[in-house]
Amino acid sequence: MHSPQASGTSSRPNSLSRRGFTVATAATAAAVATSAAAPTASAATATPVLAPTAPASLSQRCVEVARALLMRGPDGRDLIPSYRQVLVGSGLPRSAAAPKKVLVVGAGPAGLVTTLLLRRAGHTVTLVEANGNRAGGRIKTFRTGGHEHAEQPFADPRQYAEAGAMRIPQSHPLVMALIDHLKVARQKFRLVDENTDGSPAQRTWIQVNGLRVRRVDYARSPRRVNRSFGVPRALWDVPSSKILSNALAPVRDEFSTVGADGRRVDKPAEEMIAGWARVIERFGDWSMRRFLTEFAKLDEPTINLVGCLEDLTSRLPLSFIHSFLDAALISPDTTFWELRGGTASLPDALLKEVEDCVRFDRRVTRIEYWDPSRPHTDTPHVRADGPHVWIDTVSEGRGGTPVREQFAADLAVITVPFSGLRHIQVAPLLSYRKRRAVTELHYDSATKVLLEFSRRWWEFSEEEWKRELASIGPGLYDSYRRGMAPADGSLLGRHDSVTGEYLSGNQRAFYAAYRCVSRDQPGAVGSLGGGSVSDNPNRFTFNPSHTVPGSPGGVVLASYTWADDAMRWDAFDDEARYPHALSGLQEIYGQRIEVFYTGAGRTQSWARDPYAYGEASVLLPGQHTELFPDIAVPEGPLHFAGDHTSLKPAWIEGAVESGVRAAIEVHSAH
Amino acid sequence: MHSPQASGTSSRPNSLSRRGFTVATAATAAAVATSAAAPTASAATATPVLAPTAPASLSQRCVEVARALLMRGPDGRDLIPSYRQVLVGSGLPRSAAAPKKVLVVGAGPAGLVTTLLLRRAGHTVTLVEANGNRAGGRIKTFRTGGHEHAEQPFADPRQYAEAGAMRIPQSHPLVMALIDHLKVARQKFRLVDENTDGSPAQRTWIQVNGLRVRRVDYARSPRRVNRSFGVPRALWDVPSSKILSNALAPVRDEFSTVGADGRRVDKPAEEMIAGWARVIERFGDWSMRRFLTEFAKLDEPTINLVGCLEDLTSRLPLSFIHSFLDAALISPDTTFWELRGGTASLPDALLKEVEDCVRFDRRVTRIEYWDPSRPHTDTPHVRADGPHVWIDTVSEGRGGTPVREQFAADLAVITVPFSGLRHIQVAPLLSYRKRRAVTELHYDSATKVLLEFSRRWWEFSEEEWKRELASIGPGLYDSYRRGMAPADGSLLGRHDSVTGEYLSGNQRAFYAAYRCVSRDQPGAVGSLGGGSVSDNPNRFTFNPSHTVPGSPGGVVLASYTWADDAMRWDAFDDEARYPHALSGLQEIYGQRIEVFYTGAGRTQSWARDPYAYGEASVLLPGQHTELFPDIAVPEGPLHFAGDHTSLKPAWIEGAVESGVRAAIEVHSAH
Repeated sequence: MHSPQASGTSSRPNSLSRRGFTVATAATAAAVATSAAAPTASAATATPVLAPTAPASLSQRCVEVARALLMRGPDGRDLIPSYRQVLVGSGLPRSAAAPKKVLVVGAGPAGLVTTLLLRRAGHTVTLVEANGNRAGGRIKTFRTGGHEHAEQPFADPRQYAEAGAMRIPQSHPLVMALIDHLKVARQKFRLVDENTDGSPAQRTWIQVNGLRVRRVDYARSPRRVNRSFGVPRALWDVPSSKILSNALAPVRDEFSTVGADGRRVDKPAEEMIAGWARVIERFGDWSMRRFLTEFAKLDEPTINLVGCLEDLTSRLPLSFIHSFLDAALISPDTTFWELRGGTASLPDALLKEVEDCVRFDRRVTRIEYWDPSRPHTDTPHVRADGPHVWIDTVSEGRGGTPVREQFAADLAVITVPFSGLRHIQVAPLLSYRKRRAVTELHYDSATKVLLEFSRRWWEFSEEEWKRELASIGPGLYDSYRRGMAPADGSLLGRHDSVTGEYLSGNQRAFYAAYRCVSRDQPGAVGSLGGGSVSDNPNRFTFNPSHTVPGSPGGVVLASYTWADDAMRWDAFDDEARYPHALSGLQEIYGQRIEVFYTGAGRTQSWARDPYAYGEASVLLPGQHTELFPDIAVPEGPLHFAGDHTSLKPAWIEGAVESGVRAAIEVHSAH
Repeated sequence: MHSPQASGTSSRPNSLSRRGFTVATAATAAAVATSAAAPTASAATATPVLAPTAPASLSQRCVEVARALLMRGPDGRDLIPSYRQVLVGSGLPRSAAAPKKVLVVGAGPAGLVTTLLLRRAGHTVTLVEANGNRAGGRIKTFRTGGHEHAEQPFADPRQYAEAGAMRIPQSHPLVMALIDHLKVARQKFRLVDENTDGSPAQRTWIQVNGLRVRRVDYARSPRRVNRSFGVPRALWDVPSSKILSNALAPVRDEFSTVGADGRRVDKPAEEMIAGWARVIERFGDWSMRRFLTEFAKLDEPTINLVGCLEDLTSRLPLSFIHSFLDAALISPDTTFWELRGGTASLPDALLKEVEDCVRFDRRVTRIEYWDPSRPHTDTPHVRADGPHVWIDTVSEGRGGTPVREQFAADLAVITVPFSGLRHIQVAPLLSYRKRRAVTELHYDSATKVLLEFSRRWWEFSEEEWKRELASIGPGLYDSYRRGMAPADGSLLGRHDSVTGEYLSGNQRAFYAAYRCVSRDQPGAVGSLGGGSVSDNPNRFTFNPSHTVPGSPGGVVLASYTWADDAMRWDAFDDEARYPHALSGLQEIYGQRIEVFYTGAGRTQSWARDPYAYGEASVLLPGQHTELFPDIAVPEGPLHFAGDHTSLKPAWIEGAVESGVRAAIEVHSAH
């Protein structure tokens, strides 16, 4: 019997390599599946049981996953040039086949791209979207008159800020091509704060364990911070980013080499694919924590240091591969871009081209389909030349009774996150392996808290601080410096530039209750963009990279958190959340920033978003090989797109890749 | 340098046992901590950096954790008798010391117990609670006039149901003693459905992969269900619970033996503690998934089967030890109890005894304390005989401006979950190890959806179904049986016993949109209590164990989910959530149950609860040894209680244990 062995727990850990073990397992499963191939007719329900099909062997799956993440076809060919051609060149190939009637579900970037490409190729497309008046999915800009908020989100109507996607790496070829093709204006996104001449400033802060040091000082001399975590002496003088990249280096060596100039160069295609496949096979079911402990042999204090400063703590239990992919595929010296007017400019531009086929306020609740290749089917009345997909939708009933509407088509492209698809009834049942992926694919939380300031104080020199605070009252500059300014909320928004209409009494009361009491005033930042890291609940902060034409103020991302860190922000009411986030920001930058707070904040919890159900698919250990290969496989007339079907979840590039792929699939389906 | 080795990823996994590796690490850390003992004065802030102290060696920590979970003192003595004596016997020992002024934060069971015991011993206690008018914490009963909902939660005002804790195992000695001491009436909780004579019925359902079988049939013949997951032939005929208990047996052998009657018997105390310590050392940083894969050597399909039926899927990435503890410490044949009138009867009874010292609607936002043993302190004005703790609170400002109030005392007992404590400012900084625990301790989501029915249809025989449906319309019974009844919501609440006032048009519209279309009607259940398991989003359902005197209806727990499963329910509006949960219930029990649905539902998402921030601490791999030993350690005048400070998180027993411990600590502090 294939049951647990009665080995004692004090024996040495199992010495079988994962490879040996799991391949044997897959072989067993294959044998079982073959003998179970005749469908077990169910007496209890009319829906047939689809016995799970045997997955490919682990090694095969690892090669498949490696190809998917490198965007390589089965022959190792780079898919990007042909995808780019479809996306911004000649479009889908001409076809003699009759145009199809296609339903696309979800008007995020994947759905918009698919719709655009299929329409251009002559198909009849309807794009249904759950949101009442917003396309873009997890691209969402808080801006006046835009999207959900017809009213203005910030005190200065010109201000805007990102609820979702906020930066685009130059190394993402499809989204970059799309942006330029659609003539959407882009500008530099400053991940690290800069001087006005574009040189790195790194004057933002690392604020941990009661210490506060500028990034530039930590890079030069990390000892004080490192010792505050208790890291061993050998690592006292190694910055956390270097500890992490050293830990990851042997894994990178599998598919790239370090050139004479110290930069990594990919190995030739076949070797690179094989190397990645080895990485996935070896570490596919490891968490990042296990990797750092058991492979990189870092001790607990060092893992804490790296987790805290490099934003890994909340993702330590999640897949090693997920975090490693971002680190490996996006080079640290990549240029990042942001879109002028907000990332929503991209879906705006896409929407303009497909507007007439979009149906907003149609949330999909049920999908019925007919799959001629399936042995049993529930819908005997279907004609081969009629529709094969029926989709039930309901409006959200804002200001009225919910309206139900059904759509029918030959084929459908489902782009909703699997976290959302889990709550959509699908009949007949999807295949076992797809249902498993829909049920188990892990989605992470991510929460942003944005605060508006009437002046860009992070760009101030100390002299400018002096001048601005003097304009409020003589001696105020020194009161702050000596930690003697009242912390009762009376100085909130006291600068003349703050109108005060957004500063409710409740916010003042909560501010005083959550006040940060620190007896010091750190020096001015005086740089552009970038942000700080803290071990307080705010964790990561970002100053805006851009100035908004005509506006002297700016919106700071006061807190950007994931996973457990994010969940802890989600329980707050807005009126308590904003002052609380402000006090965390003050712990980093000093109390005096309060005089410019306009009282206008915005928050986005992606876990609580009624259509996103999470930030993105961030896979659990094992899910890259157990679930990923089944995610994008069509089921009869149903095709699947969205960033979760790619290996770049949470990135627009992944959504665009998938949108092009689904368009090619649908176009060539017969 | 202690940096990652440049070993290739294709090499064999590291052969060092965890023990060897981690002990070496702890030794290094100890050396570092010694040399770092002189506090690094911080130029940037007045708050001193407390360098992390060296943790005890891993083996020592494992013994500590083993003692804590077995409630044994350092000498191996069973702590339960003396705790019981304090709790329900003679109380805290008489003391010649002056009575103390104590603040207790949080009126859950831990805070209520601590308050009660300290008051009886003559101390002056103030208990501050964030909720406006409810004590009990995660004990919460939806009931008329009770707690948050002054209005009645269900159509029948006599009905009630549990938002939180719902069952109490006989094997939890302290809570059982407390219940009987306070004369709170208890009755049997039926985890498995029973016949009226008390014999197991197991007529509820397992509904997975398009199959539906009664539990009793699955226990007898699991093959059809097991094959639908693709489990290997050797396990076709082994029920999932048996597969799991076989997998866990070798671990249990470390601290218990199987007697002649097949029942497990604990080894003698010292051996038992040593055995548990070995288990924690070996598996402390393993996830349940890793255990099932690498130790129990189960293959992927078998893990899926066990995960789905035994409610492990959503917790596979979490700590093996957490799930194992519940399985190991609560025997499968334990009797469970529920409290008459709802679990809230217990906090009701406790509150009655301490009512005059409770301050409701006081959410703690800031804690300042003075610790004479700390080298630096921020509060030089403190007198040795004055208060040492100051706690800022804010009312939630319901219908008015928030009110701030400060409390001062000699000592404080903090019972708020660490997820909540994370957002409370504490000055001076807590010790490094405590801060880490507060930041990283993982809290799980848990969401319940409760639906009220005007009749207890789960107790019906088929004859009773016929009679009741005939009263609505002739032929309706057969229409349902043939799957021909309209699914448009027109039959919702159609039985005469439903008044209909809770059935909004919106609910009907959403019901129709989310309708479950199944063409069959499973047979009647005809049993008491218990519940079903499904792979649909509802996952686990429970029928009430009790009848409510005078009421012909009942409230079904239509969906009980954790972790990722729970997060996916949290994005729904209530008006969509209830009909959607109903359709999931219909998929299990058939469409006809709709005629008794009153339209009244309640839902509780603990992740979204503004004061709970999660269901309970469900630890991540490694947290039992890395965080747990630091959780309950006092920090100067601050003491810590709550279920998260015990190794029975989510159980009332854990909260009561901690409440007694904290009372003893405070009482004996000087």
